[in-house]
Amino acid sequence: MGRRLTDVSTPARLAATGEGLGQDELALAARNHGLPLEAMRYDVTPPGLHYVLTHYDIPLVPDEAAWRLTVSGRVRRVLSLSTAELRTRPAVTTRVTLECAGNGRALLSPRPVSQPWLVEAVGTAEWTGVPLRLLLAEAGVASDAVDVVFTGADHGVERGVEQDYERSLPIDIATCEEPEVLVAYAMDGAPLPPQHGRPLRLVVPGWYGMAQVKWLRGITVIDTPFTGFQQAVTYRIRRKPEETGEPVTRIAPRALVIPPGFPDFMSRTRVVAPGPVLLEGRAWSGCAPVTSVRVSTDGGATWQPAELEPDRGHRWAWRRWSFLWSAVPGDHVLSVRATDGAANTQPLEQPWNQGGFANNVVQRVPVFCPDTAHTG
Amino acid sequence: MGRRLTDVSTPARLAATGEGLGQDELALAARNHGLPLEAMRYDVTPPGLHYVLTHYDIPLVPDEAAWRLTVSGRVRRVLSLSTAELRTRPAVTTRVTLECAGNGRALLSPRPVSQPWLVEAVGTAEWTGVPLRLLLAEAGVASDAVDVVFTGADHGVERGVEQDYERSLPIDIATCEEPEVLVAYAMDGAPLPPQHGRPLRLVVPGWYGMAQVKWLRGITVIDTPFTGFQQAVTYRIRRKPEETGEPVTRIAPRALVIPPGFPDFMSRTRVVAPGPVLLEGRAWSGCAPVTSVRVSTDGGATWQPAELEPDRGHRWAWRRWSFLWSAVPGDHVLSVRATDGAANTQPLEQPWNQGGFANNVVQRVPVFCPDTAHTG
Repeated sequence: MGRRLTDVSTPARLAATGEGLGQDELALAARNHGLPLEAMRYDVTPPGLHYVLTHYDIPLVPDEAAWRLTVSGRVRRVLSLSTAELRTRPAVTTRVTLECAGNGRALLSPRPVSQPWLVEAVGTAEWTGVPLRLLLAEAGVASDAVDVVFTGADHGVERGVEQDYERSLPIDIATCEEPEVLVAYAMDGAPLPPQHGRPLRLVVPGWYGMAQVKWLRGITVIDTPFTGFQQAVTYRIRRKPEETGEPVTRIAPRALVIPPGFPDFMSRTRVVAPGPVLLEGRAWSGCAPVTSVRVSTDGGATWQPAELEPDRGHRWAWRRWSFLWSAVPGDHVLSVRATDGAANTQPLEQPWNQGGFANNVVQRVPVFCPDTAHTG
Repeated sequence: MGRRLTDVSTPARLAATGEGLGQDELALAARNHGLPLEAMRYDVTPPGLHYVLTHYDIPLVPDEAAWRLTVSGRVRRVLSLSTAELRTRPAVTTRVTLECAGNGRALLSPRPVSQPWLVEAVGTAEWTGVPLRLLLAEAGVASDAVDVVFTGADHGVERGVEQDYERSLPIDIATCEEPEVLVAYAMDGAPLPPQHGRPLRLVVPGWYGMAQVKWLRGITVIDTPFTGFQQAVTYRIRRKPEETGEPVTRIAPRALVIPPGFPDFMSRTRVVAPGPVLLEGRAWSGCAPVTSVRVSTDGGATWQPAELEPDRGHRWAWRRWSFLWSAVPGDHVLSVRATDGAANTQPLEQPWNQGGFANNVVQRVPVFCPDTAHTG
């Protein structure tokens, strides 16, 4: 008795040196999930394979016809729209690669204790919805607008703060045409699955997952910078807890390889036969188009250019790359490194931050090539 | 150089006392995934929320039209069937709850190091396919048939043994009418998703997941007991490694509660307001129909009967139960316990086995009820 919410909702912490993952981290890893890396073979991720990260529970939506999206705050007229009304407005479909801001967190040392991603928190889908800028224009944004706040129906407590999930975008991003922010009601031509925000979600091409507010029910224009928990307390790059830090925004460049050959069940070490091995994978950046991908098959000692597939007009989606490797018997470490048109590239050693955000250190895939072919 | 496959594919092991999860277990947890427990609200699990466990990689199937299922071995005539040919045969649709044999493994002490499930490795789908017994009758099974072996296209190495995933059923199970074993080509009315075995999989209602061979390409009738890795080496209940052990077969009874209220992000502790709370969940057993569900709100000290929804004719699917709880301020532990018609019930303390299979200890859900309502 007499306990408070803060007793069951404790501050952020870092794992001790050598501390394995705890059951709290496992509980998150078991209910959320990443992309099995072999699924990068598909241009558009098949249903159920796209990464999912839900802070709280997937909300219960007993009656989608009763769902309303409200646009309010510093606007000339408040909108209250049903999903049917949204579907009568101009629709845009965009192929977008989404990545969790915490991707790579479990590789850090010390490890921030949170959802423990390795490198697989990514996926690509075709999102269909109404351009946010059209809804804001319809509502009539006041000239003193600063931020636009997006409120989801997912409710929980985090570090003692009870909240609906809320994030904001600066007004210039919210009203931008490229990238075109969407209030999306369909994923790959079907209504949104429950875990992806049914019936409505935000899609902000090029930004990390925390911006892609799911179960969207409120859009509020405000005339001061938003200071909500998910904006000001977390999703910031801080070297020390007391720093204000920089907000996490656009996706840093990353390339991943589809692990070649076949795996060992437990160690996930890859086994390849000696001879030619076509390495393939994907590369993306939310900052600027990917301009080059380089591959190392010797743990980063030397790098060679991969072939990047031509630009097929999907600016906000990953691009395929390939590289023909001649595997010889022995142990190898494959790495791949993307660079974008703004000269951003992937670090070889990861700078560290408290939350484990925006990590994009080059992937390392151990491969074993036995003396004799084991090709099944 | 000179290393062998067994150097990257090591024996089974148990975690040391207090040993947290390693990156090998995390790599499995990140690519496989469980059912977010709130998704038990749906009778049939929506796409992407059903649990997934893949031993190796999801195989690449570049041309489904070229896929062939072969029925051979101790049969009068060998069959080689395309998926189109299978679709011309009599089809059956069955609602089936599937559960991984390793569900609950990460709760054991010591913890077998493998895919670390808590309790969420479950899901329910409507599977459509051809009854296996009809295909076996078409091929003409020899009178000396003992086992039927099912071969998937998923290839890997496990404890040093390179293999295609293979499991068998005794001939009497394979030719049974109830449960009707299916060679399934559809899940919830759509072609199988890649991670669920596209284009073909086995569905054995009432049996744990290891029997549900995905990416099915071979059915072989043999006249001796099958001794493959997944049948004789693993998926056996052993107290000590040197025991032969008993094979894992049918799903033991289990009930789970949809965690009430809302969660803390990190601890996943549940928070409920004081007052009436409708507890709901699901119960299932592969051994016999569930006959009762009992609920404890005091950590197992006392138990009260839950209301079990009427039998709706889905013998092989979970059943909904409900219980009205009056929450009072303080800390509580919710538990729920299913019993089936064969008098199987869930243990209050889990018997231990080497592989962590068929665990069905009663769930424990910590709930915090603050003095004042926090209902968002």
